[in-house]
Amino acid sequence: MVLREYSLKTPREDIIDIIDQVREAITAIGIADGIAIVYCPHTTAGITINENADPDVARDILLGLDAAFSNRREFRHAEGNSAAHMKASAVGSSVTVIVEGGRPVLGT
Amino acid sequence: MVLREYSLKTPREDIIDIIDQVREAITAIGIADGIAIVYCPHTTAGITINENADPDVARDILLGLDAAFSNRREFRHAEGNSAAHMKASAVGSSVTVIVEGGRPVLGT
Amino acid sequence: MVLREYSLKTPREDIIDIIDQVREAITAIGIADGIAIVYCPHTTAGITINENADPDVARDILLGLDAAFSNRREFRHAEGNSAAHMKASAVGSSVTVIVEGGRPVLGT
Repeated sequence: MVLREYSLKTPREDIIDIIDQVREAITAIGIADGIAIVYCPHTTAGITINENADPDVARDILLGLDAAFSNRREFRHAEGNSAAHMKASAVGSSVTVIVEGGRPVLGT
Repeated sequence: MVLREYSLKTPREDIIDIIDQVREAITAIGIADGIAIVYCPHTTAGITINENADPDVARDILLGLDAAFSNRREFRHAEGNSAAHMKASAVGSSVTVIVEGGRPVLGT
Repeated sequence: MVLREYSLKTPREDIIDIIDQVREAITAIGIADGIAIVYCPHTTAGITINENADPDVARDILLGLDAAFSNRREFRHAEGNSAAHMKASAVGSSVTVIVEGGRPVLGT
């Protein structure tokens, strides 16, 4: 296993496309056939796979996650970001990407 | 790593049991001890593990996901399936199955 | 691949910290660099990564998951735990932990 780290500056709430970094890491490490674990150590961020054909989908997903996991009056966590922790748990902190022929196997 | 592909025709919204395909792939590839990544490239579909003992659970899960991630008036995605994208992100596009002695390690 | 099993007694609904068991398994198996799949076979339990710095986060997550995935009148599953199945599907039954230098790569 080879670990490769990337740093991202992100706004408070957004969906960021990281497929270029994933492709770069796969090429740099030289994975031909195997798996790549794409993991984000920040517990208020998640990793998901989406075709990203229409930017409205990302916008709608943010809206919908807000509706499903909103900050609630009875929450106690002092940082006030319990909803973000919840969204991260629901979306998940990593995805496992199958790599075949040096390329991630993704939908179209 | 060996990749094995299956195609499924599914209704618009349903939970489909694919354990037979998973078992077949494990046997065909000849995994004795290791992991199997069960991945669906469609970004409006997710993969989850459930014991599937009572079909009412699948039905209730579909109802409950609909309640948590419903299509909202403020959604903009023209295909009108933003809720499906959200459900897929929440459930996740893959599961990692542990294989021991040629069989998936699952609960009962 | 080496499989290591742990049993946990848990209350009906709680977030349990299992990082000690994960670290112990990584050390006992002797993983230097690789991945550890942390999987729970119970389909009404999920595995998630959280920094666990403030116990209020865990409490808030339980409250928020209850709000997002509540038991509904139209549910039919006789055991009455469909919401728990849904939460497990949303959170996911496993996490893949990257191990580097014999230690899990986690956020701080």
